[in-house]
Amino acid sequence: VLRTKHQPLDAHAGGTARTEGLSDGVFAIAMTVLVLDLRAPSSRRGTLLDGLVEQWPAYVSFLASFLYIAVIWTNHHATFRSIASTDRGVTWANLAILCGTVLLPFPTAVLADAFRDGGRADQQTAAILYAALAVLMSAAWLAFSFLLHRRSYRLPTDGSLASWRAQMRRPILGSLGYACGALLGVLLVPTASLLVFVLIPLYYALTSEGLRDARPA
Amino acid sequence: VLRTKHQPLDAHAGGTARTEGLSDGVFAIAMTVLVLDLRAPSSRRGTLLDGLVEQWPAYVSFLASFLYIAVIWTNHHATFRSIASTDRGVTWANLAILCGTVLLPFPTAVLADAFRDGGRADQQTAAILYAALAVLMSAAWLAFSFLLHRRSYRLPTDGSLASWRAQMRRPILGSLGYACGALLGVLLVPTASLLVFVLIPLYYALTSEGLRDARPA
Amino acid sequence: VLRTKHQPLDAHAGGTARTEGLSDGVFAIAMTVLVLDLRAPSSRRGTLLDGLVEQWPAYVSFLASFLYIAVIWTNHHATFRSIASTDRGVTWANLAILCGTVLLPFPTAVLADAFRDGGRADQQTAAILYAALAVLMSAAWLAFSFLLHRRSYRLPTDGSLASWRAQMRRPILGSLGYACGALLGVLLVPTASLLVFVLIPLYYALTSEGLRDARPA
Amino acid sequence: VLRTKHQPLDAHAGGTARTEGLSDGVFAIAMTVLVLDLRAPSSRRGTLLDGLVEQWPAYVSFLASFLYIAVIWTNHHATFRSIASTDRGVTWANLAILCGTVLLPFPTAVLADAFRDGGRADQQTAAILYAALAVLMSAAWLAFSFLLHRRSYRLPTDGSLASWRAQMRRPILGSLGYACGALLGVLLVPTASLLVFVLIPLYYALTSEGLRDARPA
Repeated sequence: VLRTKHQPLDAHAGGTARTEGLSDGVFAIAMTVLVLDLRAPSSRRGTLLDGLVEQWPAYVSFLASFLYIAVIWTNHHATFRSIASTDRGVTWANLAILCGTVLLPFPTAVLADAFRDGGRADQQTAAILYAALAVLMSAAWLAFSFLLHRRSYRLPTDGSLASWRAQMRRPILGSLGYACGALLGVLLVPTASLLVFVLIPLYYALTSEGLRDARPA
Repeated sequence: VLRTKHQPLDAHAGGTARTEGLSDGVFAIAMTVLVLDLRAPSSRRGTLLDGLVEQWPAYVSFLASFLYIAVIWTNHHATFRSIASTDRGVTWANLAILCGTVLLPFPTAVLADAFRDGGRADQQTAAILYAALAVLMSAAWLAFSFLLHRRSYRLPTDGSLASWRAQMRRPILGSLGYACGALLGVLLVPTASLLVFVLIPLYYALTSEGLRDARPA
Repeated sequence: VLRTKHQPLDAHAGGTARTEGLSDGVFAIAMTVLVLDLRAPSSRRGTLLDGLVEQWPAYVSFLASFLYIAVIWTNHHATFRSIASTDRGVTWANLAILCGTVLLPFPTAVLADAFRDGGRADQQTAAILYAALAVLMSAAWLAFSFLLHRRSYRLPTDGSLASWRAQMRRPILGSLGYACGALLGVLLVPTASLLVFVLIPLYYALTSEGLRDARPA
Repeated sequence: VLRTKHQPLDAHAGGTARTEGLSDGVFAIAMTVLVLDLRAPSSRRGTLLDGLVEQWPAYVSFLASFLYIAVIWTNHHATFRSIASTDRGVTWANLAILCGTVLLPFPTAVLADAFRDGGRADQQTAAILYAALAVLMSAAWLAFSFLLHRRSYRLPTDGSLASWRAQMRRPILGSLGYACGALLGVLLVPTASLLVFVLIPLYYALTSEGLRDARPA
């Protein structure tokens, strides 16, 4: 029956409430875990200011990853607004997105360490690791979008095929951006990667389709 | 009265909302705490790539435990969809499941450490510790399922006795699987344990009954 | 008007939903942060099993504090079932309870460290610190109960004066118990404190009034 | 249409529920992460008490930041009670507030370290860092209030222009207070900063407008 498909008897229990609850929990914690890499520099008396300045790559990495998770959250939020229920595929695609989110603090810490203490080769390795996770995350997001589209769990009231195509174009462009960021770091200077990793989520934040949808018309 | 039993006046306040909220919080945090064991390798300049490769057991352990918590969450989610209220026994059985979930990052870290730096005996000890927690977790899950079944808090609309028997068979099989994994590590090579610990939740993820129920019919 | 007092127009937005959400988040995270003190023992090759056994005080402390937070959560849960809205006093008394919950991993870690590496005086200090936090927590809980009682925010349908008196008797008895636990550790052997700190929440778990209320009658 | 503006079809899915959920998660975790800087002092046998006393700046910093996050949460709670939906600007202003909240444990740890081990210059640096984050946080809060006011997403039933002006005056006064606290630390003694950082959120806690609104009239 169509009704039970789109409007389960108890939307709260049988719907997406717990999936969204778990996801919000993961996004909130991943955001907060990022700060654990910002540590009080353990230096000699009177050198705190220098110690704080020296660890600037940690601040830039923090910003890049915080913005990244924030963008994923806004997209996740916008996507779930039009989902009434989930099945196994969608659930596990969502868990893959969460797995990527949970992992993000790891390449962030590697990036910060490499740019503070490592050599040029270390910085390139760290940039490639960061971009690799971003590409995997985009792949999970593509699978998620594809499954939602194919099984037509979308409510009939919102979205058209065109908006779905747009939604699938964005993660592809995003992962290309991260790959280019890593490439620039290898070919030019490693710092270019850091810059790109901050600029991509900033660009997404300013142009997000999902948020435009969310605006009351 | 039957009505108050299955449909409390305010399902949100008197029902399972906060139990589910606390549980989702614990699942989300336990998933995220796993990443804290993935650390930037502190090695000499120019050796980052080697350092990252060397800590492969940490990635495998992370994956095993992330999948494990994800499977528990999907089962928890599916089970609570058919529970309208809780009593003391169910509450504490649920807290026992949460206790096991919260503990999981500990044997995960022990496992990763033993496979990176320890000898064969250490790796076997770590595998047994991991399997022991998995067995305790299954015991908590069995108690939880048994209490739910005995007190018949299930809504009349879903599930039959057969599905309950199936639900109690799965944790028993699962804990046998983890025990066999540890045994294989002791008798054959320790790496066999690692492999089994990743494969079991992967198998559950692909065959989960709970998720099949969740699919709109 | 009586209606707006007990049944705000939008119970979700104006009611206690967010207070409960924040509290559940804090309880879930405090439970999980406890595991961060269980670390893989960094010992020589082949000594993992000994290292794991030696840190038994960490497991006992973990259990004591996990049970403690679980008991607080069940009481919190049961209390909020009969609260329709909050005011400034109740909000800050609740935040004081959360502050105590958030702090609990600190004396837990101190306790575990003192019993693993410290001398007798260190163990007594740690036991007194743990009991002192428990007494402060009970004081916050008393203030919370008192404010709720005085302002009569309780819904008319549940609870009598007698149950309120009982609810105020329990934290007083609990804090006396923790104080006695610390005293036993000073007068007899420090291990007695550890034992008492595990037994008190276990006793509360088995006799909780709140949970009895929660059972559908 | 006015109706869809203030009362979306599904207030739960399309409204502010997930924004509030993410925010509560971040507030809860940031509160709890603060405790990770309170560590068992690793000292020689028999010196635990001295070690605990010596790290008093860590306790004061903890209290200052816990109160700070608690005050932000109560204001956030009170503000969202009168918001029915969000747009891109409001969402990102909210994410900026969350970014500041997530960062707070960092200057807190720097402050605690500087007052325990650092010299006078280190303590002044740490106080300025702490105040700088507080000023940035107030700026994010001002942007948030301004956007809400300009776009008139407020429900017609509550609040007047006057209360909005009051709400914008408070963060300005607060950031002035933190700046003065840092200045006092530079001009007088560094301990003055610590004192001011505890007193400001305490003052806000006792006078909060938001909580007065929340009281059922």
